[in-house]
Amino acid sequence: MFDRVWLNAYLATMDGPEDAPLGLVQDGAVAVREGRIAYVGPRAGLPGPAADTIDCDGAWILPGLIDCHTHLVFGGDRSGEFQQRLQGASYEQIAQAGGGILSTMRATRAADDAALLAAAAGRLRGLVAEGATTVEIKSGYGLDLATEMKMLRVARALGSAEGVGVVTALLAAHAVPPGFPGGSDAYVDAVVREMIPAAARSGLADAVDAFCEGIAFSPAQTARVFEAARAAGLPVKLHADQLSDLGGAMLAARSGALSADHLEHANAHGLRAMAEAGTVAVLLPGATYFLREPRLPDIAAMRDCGLRMALATDMNPGSSPLRSLLLALNLGCTLFRLTVSEALLGVTRHAAAALGLTDRGLLRAGARADLALYRIHQPAELCYWIGGNPCIGRVVGGE
Amino acid sequence: MFDRVWLNAYLATMDGPEDAPLGLVQDGAVAVREGRIAYVGPRAGLPGPAADTIDCDGAWILPGLIDCHTHLVFGGDRSGEFQQRLQGASYEQIAQAGGGILSTMRATRAADDAALLAAAAGRLRGLVAEGATTVEIKSGYGLDLATEMKMLRVARALGSAEGVGVVTALLAAHAVPPGFPGGSDAYVDAVVREMIPAAARSGLADAVDAFCEGIAFSPAQTARVFEAARAAGLPVKLHADQLSDLGGAMLAARSGALSADHLEHANAHGLRAMAEAGTVAVLLPGATYFLREPRLPDIAAMRDCGLRMALATDMNPGSSPLRSLLLALNLGCTLFRLTVSEALLGVTRHAAAALGLTDRGLLRAGARADLALYRIHQPAELCYWIGGNPCIGRVVGGE
Ligand SMILES: [Zn+2]
Ligand SMILES: [Zn+2]
Repeated sequence: MFDRVWLNAYLATMDGPEDAPLGLVQDGAVAVREGRIAYVGPRAGLPGPAADTIDCDGAWILPGLIDCHTHLVFGGDRSGEFQQRLQGASYEQIAQAGGGILSTMRATRAADDAALLAAAAGRLRGLVAEGATTVEIKSGYGLDLATEMKMLRVARALGSAEGVGVVTALLAAHAVPPGFPGGSDAYVDAVVREMIPAAARSGLADAVDAFCEGIAFSPAQTARVFEAARAAGLPVKLHADQLSDLGGAMLAARSGALSADHLEHANAHGLRAMAEAGTVAVLLPGATYFLREPRLPDIAAMRDCGLRMALATDMNPGSSPLRSLLLALNLGCTLFRLTVSEALLGVTRHAAAALGLTDRGLLRAGARADLALYRIHQPAELCYWIGGNPCIGRVVGGE
Repeated sequence: MFDRVWLNAYLATMDGPEDAPLGLVQDGAVAVREGRIAYVGPRAGLPGPAADTIDCDGAWILPGLIDCHTHLVFGGDRSGEFQQRLQGASYEQIAQAGGGILSTMRATRAADDAALLAAAAGRLRGLVAEGATTVEIKSGYGLDLATEMKMLRVARALGSAEGVGVVTALLAAHAVPPGFPGGSDAYVDAVVREMIPAAARSGLADAVDAFCEGIAFSPAQTARVFEAARAAGLPVKLHADQLSDLGGAMLAARSGALSADHLEHANAHGLRAMAEAGTVAVLLPGATYFLREPRLPDIAAMRDCGLRMALATDMNPGSSPLRSLLLALNLGCTLFRLTVSEALLGVTRHAAAALGLTDRGLLRAGARADLALYRIHQPAELCYWIGGNPCIGRVVGGE
């Protein structure tokens, strides 16, 4: 006896063979028991009755979507800066006027838990309404111990408040806070000695992230951050090779990172090393679009070496104020020329892999019963439309 | 005594002076009587009581948004074609497989009024949910008398069914139907002798549109269409200079067109003539984005000559499956570098002008009481965010 069964649905299990990865099933059924998928396949093969039956009336069921890279907890926004830039203000003028990432740092430090939670909850609900059931959230706008912990605490609280799986990452190594005594090396000391151990001790961080870039932290500094994460028992991931090739992809691969993210300037060597190490490439076309970056990640090289690609919003106030994972699908297809299969795997199975999760991102017996239901004619519609939301239902852990 | 008043709101009247066109009012009030705005300004200046008072709790009120260029009535969609293109299929292969505009023509001819209405209503509701109160809808996928009339009939019916102002345009001169006896000139004969008179007689068309382009109709053919429209008493507008410079901007200006739309390849001469003629430039960044067209409309030249710019979705299945006018704002700012003021005027006052409407698109005593309410901190947020919907209310004709 199943707890519940969904009938009269088309399925995209995301668990098909390599040449048909969407795993399409017509007239399908999904049955759950105790929060797990107990059967998925043709309705004709359903092995038994259920306490509760839901007729999907021809809707499509996919695994609940996963946004594996967001910075959605932050104070303020940067719409004023956006307006100034359109009026011709330079980055320097904006920085002098107190704009840029430091304005977000100040607003995030100034906000209390409740204010941060309320602002982030609105953004998270947008993702949830589209069928997201798991969302990664990074810290990184505190740049001091108290605020980084506050951000992680709010991220955790969001998960329970909004009924969504939240996976956190400590991104204390996002930028050097201005005027930090001793500069970037001294700040890395604080990250390594203070923040990473505190995040691990408190259980607030599921992983440690860093921004390896000329304007942020060097490969050597990043390696120190990763070492401290390893010592604390936390997996790592990396903002890598977004604006220049610092060998971030290779560093991530050698460190056994869950993912390396952005990768616009990554070289083929590093990408191949990632594929061999099982490090997932997380593509963030929202930033490419918003910053009008001409340089695109080398998708052909990623395909060549069989590198798994995930796709995420990168939702953040400075470089990607993208509040929709469905739009990330369209941006990935339109700008990066991902195929529909690649894009959809990127927000399901490969997004789960980027978070180190094996229990979700696909419809398979034994997986968490996280489902998203859509009123569409074929999965390609999820990538094709620009705006609009065909999600008509969402199930988390069978509920 | 007013019928209703909205209090405790910030206003962007879109009726400010040239150097501050948003017309911002703090602690503002909007009062309506018999479907018209009777007062707009500071709450302190409100001249009398109202039967009904609404506290906006600090929300922003703008004039209801206007999407002045859509093709939102159509059969089928082209998500399958999108998928094939991403897998490497060429335009020729897709055309040979029955794709392209002709697939939309066939699906639109095959659909009955109810099916067309249901599909279009879903798309229209997306615009309405964002605060749109007036939407233009074109025909142009029938390419025969019966189907062009069916599309216009459905567009009219949508307006009453969905509580939104609908303005229609006959776009029979969108493409030459395949195998038409006598080719394009003979088809223009049918448009001129049959379809335009029928559309005028029935009252189903508010304007006549045409697609002047190498792949569509020549300037001479377009001039014939415009002449027939004038004879039938209908204003004209033009899909002009999208893919090449055929002098469409100049033709539109000389014909006294309400608007010329797209304009990526328009020359400065034509743009200046448009400004002098009062013809509005309608910008459609959704198509630029979706087609990855490198050529952008010459915004600097438009600014130079004081040409009014509107901004619209161009919602259509082939080149702009954009179902969000808020996203059109972001696309216009991000891709075309419109300022926030230009973008917002483009979906309000200038969009009304593009439709020949003087009774809406701004908050002013005497205008239609079409309002959109947003939970934002400043109008720039409507342009800045990519996805998400801050609209919390919508008023059409005071209701
Ligand atoms: Zn990021
Ligand atoms: Zn159009």
